Amino acid sequence: MSIKPVIVVHGGAWAIPDSLAEGSVQGVRLAAGAGYRLLKAGGSAVDAVEAAVRSMEDNPVFDAGVGSVLNADGEVEMDAVIMDGRDLRSGAVGCVQNIKNPISLARAVMEKTDHTLIVGKGANKFAEEVGAVTLPTEELVTETARREWEQLMKYHTTVTTLFGARSDVQKEPDPVVQGHDTVGAVVLDAQGNIAFGTSTGGITAKRPGRIGDSPIIGAGGYADNAGGGVSTTGHGESIAKVCLAKHITHLMEGGMDPQTASETALTFMFKRVQGSGGVVVLNNCGNIGKHFTTERMAWAWIKDGVLHYGLNPGDDFNDPNI
Amino acid sequence: MSIKPVIVVHGGAWAIPDSLAEGSVQGVRLAAGAGYRLLKAGGSAVDAVEAAVRSMEDNPVFDAGVGSVLNADGEVEMDAVIMDGRDLRSGAVGCVQNIKNPISLARAVMEKTDHTLIVGKGANKFAEEVGAVTLPTEELVTETARREWEQLMKYHTTVTTLFGARSDVQKEPDPVVQGHDTVGAVVLDAQGNIAFGTSTGGITAKRPGRIGDSPIIGAGGYADNAGGGVSTTGHGESIAKVCLAKHITHLMEGGMDPQTASETALTFMFKRVQGSGGVVVLNNCGNIGKHFTTERMAWAWIKDGVLHYGLNPGDDFNDPNI
Repeated sequence: MSIKPVIVVHGGAWAIPDSLAEGSVQGVRLAAGAGYRLLKAGGSAVDAVEAAVRSMEDNPVFDAGVGSVLNADGEVEMDAVIMDGRDLRSGAVGCVQNIKNPISLARAVMEKTDHTLIVGKGANKFAEEVGAVTLPTEELVTETARREWEQLMKYHTTVTTLFGARSDVQKEPDPVVQGHDTVGAVVLDAQGNIAFGTSTGGITAKRPGRIGDSPIIGAGGYADNAGGGVSTTGHGESIAKVCLAKHITHLMEGGMDPQTASETALTFMFKRVQGSGGVVVLNNCGNIGKHFTTERMAWAWIKDGVLHYGLNPGDDFNDPNI
Repeated sequence: MSIKPVIVVHGGAWAIPDSLAEGSVQGVRLAAGAGYRLLKAGGSAVDAVEAAVRSMEDNPVFDAGVGSVLNADGEVEMDAVIMDGRDLRSGAVGCVQNIKNPISLARAVMEKTDHTLIVGKGANKFAEEVGAVTLPTEELVTETARREWEQLMKYHTTVTTLFGARSDVQKEPDPVVQGHDTVGAVVLDAQGNIAFGTSTGGITAKRPGRIGDSPIIGAGGYADNAGGGVSTTGHGESIAKVCLAKHITHLMEGGMDPQTASETALTFMFKRVQGSGGVVVLNNCGNIGKHFTTERMAWAWIKDGVLHYGLNPGDDFNDPNI
């Protein structure tokens, strides 16, 4: 029996404003389509994950690659990870600068080094070695992202002034007002292999050098042919504390279906560390889970040539003409 | 019923040469004692973890803090993490330079920021803000570490020449010849709280910017009052791929005792990704697990005023006069 390939993607779980709603939905539809076409042409799970995530990195509506937000110093620092569920090989970059497609650089870490995570200036040095395509900061950052950063830095100063935070310890602004989030994809290919990828520009006005959950195996996602695949999004520090993705694959290995595992794990995360987020999940039978505890999450999946997608809780639109 | 405090520490799992054997054993004994004294005086699990890890960071026999190894560029980049099992709060630093005690900087990330991991120059900027004690590279590096680096870089060049690795993709030297490893501690305090800490200088001649498992929650360790605590050591990339620490706490939450969980998880890691390493583990009843699949691991634990320690497989020496 041949396996039917499946792809599921997300464009980040957060309070997506109406101005970005249509663009986000359109973006995840396009990304799922880009990955699915490769799968139908015999591409591997890793190929399809990379294609889907690249599509969202190149789309300025999402906070990854082009469209990334600015950190407290007004710079862009991006994180990305990719993992192959056949043998758990994986590669990731953290706090890398001026790279057009961090997901492809993460794939180069997986395929061309013995390491799983390379960060900071070391990641940029590696990017140079492998000839990764670069972009100047002004081409990575949208006008919207720059305005948001300016407002947040003003807010940040206001909070510091009002509440008298110690000057030697810079506290981050309230996460509630920090916009944007992560993109990700999980794929099951016709050979029964599972892969996942996640990519992000992080949160606006984050401290330089901050890494959340995204490039961390077991937090920002996980892929194991034996258990399934997960890509996560939401409050990175909360996701890291509970190893959200690994938690979900453990639940599935115990026999839980992907949807119940997604809901169970996000409920656990909220109870244990008061964090919100979203996930897309596949098990090795190609069953799909998706759930979010934020206001909105743009998601899309394709199976049997039918596209499903949504943004608000309860949405499940479909388009059979893929 | 009052809870009896317990501390268990390790000084790294690897092919420890005879020249470092006695120093390693003495070092873990001292570290366990430093943490246990604090616990007896009413200190918290987090306090005791920090004290034990600092003791090993200050000891040049271990590859953490003073005694750290050099990366391919001849620089020291250190990683450390600490986690409080009460509420899963945690803090970590990655690829930080010239810091005397990375474990204390990790604690500052946990207590003074909203983040869980800060890396690279951002971590050094944060260190400056909180006034962390710095040391010049020449005081962090021992003469032995520098000689080892020189030999490895020579070996590295030889391998590249002999086997014709592509000049655009620098491959790391065989991990088998890379020396040194991580230190760590897990504690249960008299209030029933669990904490863990792990600290490392990484592997000799590692690629600049490389982060292994050590500062990653769920890989380099985990602490949850509901499940138990773990600190890991060994081949970092393998440990990260299987989320070794989280795997062990899952097994314990399912009712497995710490020793069986340690052995089961290390066997799984070897079978799935052919990686070796070692772990020290506590459950929330104060039962202890320790296991390693490398040649040696220096370990020590103290409970009821009795110190146990060892280095080779099968060792279990004890000293009742703590």
